[in-house]
Amino acid sequence: MAELKLHDLELSGNCYKVRLLCSLLGQHLDIVPVDFLSGAHKKSPLIEKNPFGEIPIFEDGGMTLRDSQAILVYLARKYGGDAWLPTDAASMAKVVEWLMVAENEIARGPNDARLHDKFGVPIDAEAAREKAKRIFGLMETHLAKNDWLALGRTTIADIACMPYVALSHEGGLSLDPYPAIRAWIGRIKALPGFIAMPAI
Amino acid sequence: MAELKLHDLELSGNCYKVRLLCSLLGQHLDIVPVDFLSGAHKKSPLIEKNPFGEIPIFEDGGMTLRDSQAILVYLARKYGGDAWLPTDAASMAKVVEWLMVAENEIARGPNDARLHDKFGVPIDAEAAREKAKRIFGLMETHLAKNDWLALGRTTIADIACMPYVALSHEGGLSLDPYPAIRAWIGRIKALPGFIAMPAI
Repeated sequence: MAELKLHDLELSGNCYKVRLLCSLLGQHLDIVPVDFLSGAHKKSPLIEKNPFGEIPIFEDGGMTLRDSQAILVYLARKYGGDAWLPTDAASMAKVVEWLMVAENEIARGPNDARLHDKFGVPIDAEAAREKAKRIFGLMETHLAKNDWLALGRTTIADIACMPYVALSHEGGLSLDPYPAIRAWIGRIKALPGFIAMPAI
Repeated sequence: MAELKLHDLELSGNCYKVRLLCSLLGQHLDIVPVDFLSGAHKKSPLIEKNPFGEIPIFEDGGMTLRDSQAILVYLARKYGGDAWLPTDAASMAKVVEWLMVAENEIARGPNDARLHDKFGVPIDAEAAREKAKRIFGLMETHLAKNDWLALGRTTIADIACMPYVALSHEGGLSLDPYPAIRAWIGRIKALPGFIAMPAI
């Protein structure tokens, strides 16, 4: 019997991704809240589990993982068969293209804008909002022609990219100009097993 | 007979990753130089191949990929069997953790510092160098205990992370304080089929 454990912050979109995919996969996840404001993620014992000093931190038995995108890969491969992350070269690469968008353009765009506005992190919020609008424009064009980001069905690409897009109003951004993005978020919310987080 | 094609810039570490893995895999790659200075990557026909307006752009027959990490995943899965990117959940996730470091910490650290110093891109170079030193410190600790980044052997994690670390002197950074990183770069350079790029 697997014991999946997440060192978690409820307001983190990166932690939410992990909670959401576990729920969609029907996997039970032990949630361990991290005292983020007191910096527990930068101290022992968590800093030994993740030397990067960040959450989420995920454990499955004796194995520990950092980085939300890597955790999604693990869950998809271990508990999702070929459904959420296929192993053929072209399909896997198409999913990974969007995992990289989550790690790069979305992290430096809407996520950074929210970090500034909601949590007071000293980031250039206007630059982050410009980056957000650029990636939203690219996603809008893509999603106007495709129901899902990477393949003709839901994959972890959608789970990786959705949270900080759906939370972008907390970073001073509006999704009003992006109807295809809003419809895509609606399709994800309609998936069996979907769970929400605050502000989504 | 596959026809692998790379829309390439010789001085790009991200393009070099693709050239390097193809060489290590013994795969022939058609190199198509992109007129980067005149912005060919932001115009037709390349902008249709990659709406993000970036290189590398990779083609295999009718399939087109963007993002260097995604291209490494494709090449590893298609031409590398389980050697460079294993499909079991834990091993794959460990590789992906480091692909994300290439896309995030290394891109925003040594890569950004080099973009500023070598190419005049308006980036906060001091902030980039601080980020570089942080990730170099984390990599040094890890590589002092491990020969390779993700697993007990070479994987695409090493190929993804090495170029901008090895190029960091072009961004005003020194690897002198990091003997384990330098030894790791040396091990990669000793791989059969290794090819260099300018300044590596």
